Amino acid sequence: MIRARIEQRAKDRDGWTPQGPVVELSADHSWTLLGQASFGRLAVSVDNQPAIFPLDYACDGHSILFRTAEGTKLRDLLRNNRVSFEADKRVRDESWSVIVEGTADILHDPFDIADAESAALPEWVPTAPPVYVRISPTSIHGRRFVHSVLAQRSPAL
Amino acid sequence: MIRARIEQRAKDRDGWTPQGPVVELSADHSWTLLGQASFGRLAVSVDNQPAIFPLDYACDGHSILFRTAEGTKLRDLLRNNRVSFEADKRVRDESWSVIVEGTADILHDPFDIADAESAALPEWVPTAPPVYVRISPTSIHGRRFVHSVLAQRSPAL
Repeated sequence: MIRARIEQRAKDRDGWTPQGPVVELSADHSWTLLGQASFGRLAVSVDNQPAIFPLDYACDGHSILFRTAEGTKLRDLLRNNRVSFEADKRVRDESWSVIVEGTADILHDPFDIADAESAALPEWVPTAPPVYVRISPTSIHGRRFVHSVLAQRSPAL
Repeated sequence: MIRARIEQRAKDRDGWTPQGPVVELSADHSWTLLGQASFGRLAVSVDNQPAIFPLDYACDGHSILFRTAEGTKLRDLLRNNRVSFEADKRVRDESWSVIVEGTADILHDPFDIADAESAALPEWVPTAPPVYVRISPTSIHGRRFVHSVLAQRSPAL
């Protein structure tokens, strides 16, 4: 396959999405975008084996709330409470993606649980008693990027 | 908040998404769904700190190919090549989500790289030399689930 020759180099500040130009978003903008979505993915690690869980969430100020159930695999995995959380949204050929790193803690205080119950989480069918988890961020990182940038090809070699 | 009283319990085989009924998908069905999408998220772990990366991918048989760049953070993270990969799609109030666990390896053989270059990955602007990575699965797990199930509430207490 003929490798494209590029006339114009894209901005690519830290390179994790080298497919095309990347725009770094401010923390405020990233929180705003997170607040507009409700479905994300949590990455956890146990014995250095990563695992990923899709879940519904709600922003509560600058933290993230989600609900799980007693005895789920996810709850067990939170033995290591260092987590990474991601949400994204695609609009035509562009996406934004926000990544939050932080610690996830199960809520025990009845006042905290009452607060969490009033968060804008989707209704659910509690097949098991719910457990609320809050992710307290240590960092937030948002980017907007393009999926398909047509490379300018050189004439056939 | 009044806790919903549930008349009918939902099927919830392993509980990681206790928001509503879950349908487990076969491996074949899960691969078919993965083949219909092109944007997923990779979870990696270094020193037991999980990290998550959104990326474009292509299925190549029962493996997953993606492209990164020399010297990116992602490539560094692949020092621990045990990974978890997820893709999902929402259609109205339902989503499917497929999770692949496996090992990720950078391709070095020129024939493997030539094969990867012909995979249906999006065009890109190579700001840096591309590196192709293949995830060889050890397991695949697909589920379809409902985001909002209106719980049947008991009369006001």
